[in-house]
Amino acid sequence: MPGYRALLSSSKGKVKAALRPLLQAVQPAQLPLSPALWDLEDDLTRGLTLEGTPLRELVTRFGSPLHVVRAARLRDNARRFRSIPSGATRGCEVFYSYKTNPIPGVLKTLHEQGIGAEVISPYELWLAKELGVPAELTIYNGPAKSDDSLRDAVERGIQAINCNHREELPRVARIARQLGVRARVTLRVNTSVGWSGQFGTPIQGGRALAAYREALTMPELSVVGLHAHRGGQIRNEPELLAFVSEVLAFAEQLEGIMPSPLELLNFGGSLGLSTSEHLDDRARRRNELFHVDVPTPAAAEALTIERYLELLLGAVDQHYRRLSKPRPRVFLEPGRAMTGNAQLLLTRVLSTKENAGTTCAILDAGINLAESVKSEYHQVFCVTRHREARSHLHTLVGPICSPGDTLYPALRLPPLAEGDCLAIMDAGAYFVPFSTSFSFPRPAIVMLDDGQATLLRRRETFEDLCSYDSPR
Amino acid sequence: MPGYRALLSSSKGKVKAALRPLLQAVQPAQLPLSPALWDLEDDLTRGLTLEGTPLRELVTRFGSPLHVVRAARLRDNARRFRSIPSGATRGCEVFYSYKTNPIPGVLKTLHEQGIGAEVISPYELWLAKELGVPAELTIYNGPAKSDDSLRDAVERGIQAINCNHREELPRVARIARQLGVRARVTLRVNTSVGWSGQFGTPIQGGRALAAYREALTMPELSVVGLHAHRGGQIRNEPELLAFVSEVLAFAEQLEGIMPSPLELLNFGGSLGLSTSEHLDDRARRRNELFHVDVPTPAAAEALTIERYLELLLGAVDQHYRRLSKPRPRVFLEPGRAMTGNAQLLLTRVLSTKENAGTTCAILDAGINLAESVKSEYHQVFCVTRHREARSHLHTLVGPICSPGDTLYPALRLPPLAEGDCLAIMDAGAYFVPFSTSFSFPRPAIVMLDDGQATLLRRRETFEDLCSYDSPR
Repeated sequence: MPGYRALLSSSKGKVKAALRPLLQAVQPAQLPLSPALWDLEDDLTRGLTLEGTPLRELVTRFGSPLHVVRAARLRDNARRFRSIPSGATRGCEVFYSYKTNPIPGVLKTLHEQGIGAEVISPYELWLAKELGVPAELTIYNGPAKSDDSLRDAVERGIQAINCNHREELPRVARIARQLGVRARVTLRVNTSVGWSGQFGTPIQGGRALAAYREALTMPELSVVGLHAHRGGQIRNEPELLAFVSEVLAFAEQLEGIMPSPLELLNFGGSLGLSTSEHLDDRARRRNELFHVDVPTPAAAEALTIERYLELLLGAVDQHYRRLSKPRPRVFLEPGRAMTGNAQLLLTRVLSTKENAGTTCAILDAGINLAESVKSEYHQVFCVTRHREARSHLHTLVGPICSPGDTLYPALRLPPLAEGDCLAIMDAGAYFVPFSTSFSFPRPAIVMLDDGQATLLRRRETFEDLCSYDSPR
Repeated sequence: MPGYRALLSSSKGKVKAALRPLLQAVQPAQLPLSPALWDLEDDLTRGLTLEGTPLRELVTRFGSPLHVVRAARLRDNARRFRSIPSGATRGCEVFYSYKTNPIPGVLKTLHEQGIGAEVISPYELWLAKELGVPAELTIYNGPAKSDDSLRDAVERGIQAINCNHREELPRVARIARQLGVRARVTLRVNTSVGWSGQFGTPIQGGRALAAYREALTMPELSVVGLHAHRGGQIRNEPELLAFVSEVLAFAEQLEGIMPSPLELLNFGGSLGLSTSEHLDDRARRRNELFHVDVPTPAAAEALTIERYLELLLGAVDQHYRRLSKPRPRVFLEPGRAMTGNAQLLLTRVLSTKENAGTTCAILDAGINLAESVKSEYHQVFCVTRHREARSHLHTLVGPICSPGDTLYPALRLPPLAEGDCLAIMDAGAYFVPFSTSFSFPRPAIVMLDDGQATLLRRRETFEDLCSYDSPR
């Protein structure tokens, strides 16, 4: 039996090895994205640099692995989201999705640009208050609001509590009644395409409208608008317009039962990044089995922030012009599109291991810090050998001693050696919140601003990892 | 286009709904495992209790969510792993896999029973030293050893450095040379079934033997044995015997090139738990799409610790008797089988949401604390309604505002309401190390010992989550 399994496993290996060149010929090597998309520059002697700072020097100074946040890109993204498209009379009010990258130094930078806080937990609500975000720039979302946090939100009179599901309405009403105030609420509704499950009430079947009718019977609730967050990544115009038109059609229905016009329409987030996109299982499997490159995103074709705003506000303006009604305030809750491309993760090669046909590069960052790389395209650059040809096939694995800790089954890079430094791009969405301290302390986070690097968060120490434990 | 997609999505929904009763009839409802397997008792008025302590009182006292570790079960598992099977002359030397559940209070309890430390990172090596584990009870594994940590390990003369791959050998030799000592090493080898990739050198094709030949040329290395960790879960006798016999066959080859007999054989870990097992994708998909129960593990048929030892030591003893040689020391590195069933995670229902045909129960613990539940069977009990029939279909989701935060797409439980408390069993392997602080602080960990609960690790506070950040 073991002999048979071994034989089978070995034959499978031979079949895969034989199929590799064929499949690689059918889908030739993918070109990497250009470092210029992130303003990275190539210096003959100092490797890749950002704002004149060699990335490898940052690792020498602050240790590896290392998150590098770029202030200029954060400010630029914030400014772009708050810009008014030509033809529009007003722009959007923008609330950053805290859960995407809840680093206080990042959040402060965005708030300084007039961006508000979209929070989904008692902790995030507390953090926004700590960071001095005013109540009118705070929105509370999510399926898991505690009574205490709702009490705080209602008492402070935050901009809106977006009730995740119908059952939240009486809770908010009860708390508002206890406090003797009215709470500003919206109800999250689901369009035909997008997340459902634990989120929102479907527009289809009249369920969302029924929930709104219920909300309107509660005198403690001030129903100020509607909330629709599609989820997934909106990457092209048809996807965006389909979503927006469904929301607008529902808003029109809703206006029919409202005692007064809707004050606001909240379109949530979900705008994708041009340089990173979801990898389907097939792409990942082909990469693993046959070493076929995962597809590089068509960055130039992706929806930009400007085009997203232009289309979204264009559709809303047109809709209300047609109805001859003033258009409500438009709220957005971007996450990935705001911070994703403003951060990179530097990691070093701890060791290499020669396997048949590939070199396994064991990095000091794996799924403990960059789990998204398993299901999303993230461009990887070799900071220390950027000028060399991407000639050699590598498996990039992390340090945590689990076969699941494989970031890239097969990636062409210059031949790596111990001590080489890699940059994993677009680390500003979901890398930090999903990070664990699995056997290795979490890294420092620095901000690069006008070429100056300052520490936003120090790295964890060994002592930190057991500092909440009872005395040893 | 959106109309078409909506129609398609809605038709798919109808097809799934129509297929559900058919598929559920083909595979009837699964019975849950008995609470008695974890010594849980059902109290008429106080719900489920453990050692006379009502679990819901623990949540009232220490907050929710809450990890509960059971000292008696830890001691019992340790004792069982160190027992000598009938017919054997000696037992095994046992090193607990720190990465599986690195809670100092848990580790101390195991060390008090004579269990050593199997560490895979500089942090874990440091922690074992902090906890007073002697050098001879420490083993250093994994692909990501730093030079500093290797220096410490060599200097202290730990029991064994298991070189993960051939390329580690010259590093260890260089460090030993610098320190003027010899390092006790083994080399990790791969059998035909089991993990490979970043781990080990294959026995097949003579590669492991070649690596050993290389090690034997390095005078700084004292090659004391071999290391083989299969990975995955060993759940039955044929799997175990196939693995052990391959290791023994290689050991025999190896003895042929060694200047002296092997001092030790390290068979790693991988023994599974009887009450939890890997769920294949199909089982998960059928649960999600058609609400078919995931299969309950056949707990009574799984390999016990006693039977595992009896078979493993029996095979080793027989092998060396046949060769008329003394048998080497036998090392084991259990993780899951040592601590998995000694811990449970208590979580409360924050809110419920009625969906078509199911109730979505929003819990205060999701993939942030219990990601393993997505790919492994974990028994769930309703602590507060254990006597009621499991009559109602629930989707169990966590709090983190992501559709990925779904622990069970469909699980039959008594009808849940806000405030109900659930126990997720077998939380003592990979729950704590894979936990994140995604929007919610991590919970407290208590140990129950002879009915007394004491705090091992306090819960994170809001302040903790940003305490390493630069002043706000």
